[in-house]
Amino acid sequence: MARWEPNARERLVRAALDLFTEQGYDGTTVNEIAQRAGGLTKTTFFRHFRDKREVLFAAGQEVHSQLMVDAIAAAPDSATPLQAVAAALDAVSATFTDGRREFSARLREVIADNSELRERAGIKRAALAEAMTGALHERGVPDPAASLAAELGARAFYQAFDLWSASASQQSLADLARQTLDELRAAIATLG
Amino acid sequence: MARWEPNARERLVRAALDLFTEQGYDGTTVNEIAQRAGGLTKTTFFRHFRDKREVLFAAGQEVHSQLMVDAIAAAPDSATPLQAVAAALDAVSATFTDGRREFSARLREVIADNSELRERAGIKRAALAEAMTGALHERGVPDPAASLAAELGARAFYQAFDLWSASASQQSLADLARQTLDELRAAIATLG
Repeated sequence: MARWEPNARERLVRAALDLFTEQGYDGTTVNEIAQRAGGLTKTTFFRHFRDKREVLFAAGQEVHSQLMVDAIAAAPDSATPLQAVAAALDAVSATFTDGRREFSARLREVIADNSELRERAGIKRAALAEAMTGALHERGVPDPAASLAAELGARAFYQAFDLWSASASQQSLADLARQTLDELRAAIATLG
Repeated sequence: MARWEPNARERLVRAALDLFTEQGYDGTTVNEIAQRAGGLTKTTFFRHFRDKREVLFAAGQEVHSQLMVDAIAAAPDSATPLQAVAAALDAVSATFTDGRREFSARLREVIADNSELRERAGIKRAALAEAMTGALHERGVPDPAASLAAELGARAFYQAFDLWSASASQQSLADLARQTLDELRAAIATLG
C-alpha cells in the first residue's frame, strides 16, 4: 500500500545529486537513490520519475515552463516581445534563491560530465523555449519573431545561470539574466 | 594491402543512405554498407569513417565548415556580420545542386526517424555555427554579436534546407536561404 512520504520528490532529487557527485551518474542505481533519500523504495521513486535521468529535470521543466508562460501572459499589452520574455526570466529566476546556489553549481557539474544528462538538459532548454514561443503566440506575436525572442530568452537565462552558479558574486540570478538579455538586445542591433 | 577504391567515400555514403532507407539505421551493419558500395570491405569503410553514424555527416561537416569560413573571410571589409553570414550560406548552398535534392530529402527522412542521427545532426549544426562564429571573430566581430549572427545563419540555412529538400518548388537553396535570413533579419527588428 502506498504510504505518503513527506517531501519524497525533493528528497529524491537531493539524494540523486549527492550520489551522482560522489560516484558518478553511470555508477548510481535508482535503488541507491531511493535508499539514500531516507529509506524510500524504488516504487516510490518511479511514482515520481520515469527513470534515473528524469530525476534532475522533470520537476524543474514543468515548474519553469509554467512560470514562464504565466509571466508572459501577465505582461502588459504594451510590452514588446523581449519585455515579455524578460518578465518570464524574472519569474523563473526568483525561484533560485541564494540558498540554491551551491546545489545549482553541483547540478551544473554533474550535467557537464555526462552526455546523457547534457542531452536531457538540451531537451529541457528546448522545452522552455517552446513554452515561451507558445505564450508569445498567444499574445499575437507571429513567427519567426516569437521563436527568436524565446531563443534569446533561453540563451540569456542559461548564460546567467552559469555565471550565477559558478560565481561568488552577490548578484541575483534575476539581475544577471536581465543584464544578459540586455547585452543580447544591444548586440542584435549591430548585426546589420 | 590497401587498394585505391575510386570514389569509395561517395559510394559508401550513397550505399548507407540506401540501406538506412530500406531497412532502417539500427538494422544496418557497416559490413552491409561496404558490400552494397560495390563490394568494399569493412576496412575500407573504417579508413573513411569512424563509425556507422559518421557516414552521413563527417564529409559534409568538414566541407561545409570550410566553405563557410572561407566565404566569411572573403567578404568585403564593409560587410556587416549578417552580410558575411549571407555569403557563407551562398557558398554552402551552391553545392546543393538540383540533382542532390532527392538525396537530401531521403537524408532528411532517415535523420528524422532516428534519435542517434538527430543528435549527430545537432552536433553538425553546432559545429557549423561555431565555425561561422570563429570566422566572424577573425573579422573583429565581438561576442555575443558573432555567435548571434552565426546562430541566425544556421537557423536560416536549416530552415531553407527543409523547404528545399521537401518541396517541388523551382527555387534554389541559395535563394531560399537568402530569403529566410532576410525574414529573420526583419523579425529581430520587431523584438523591442
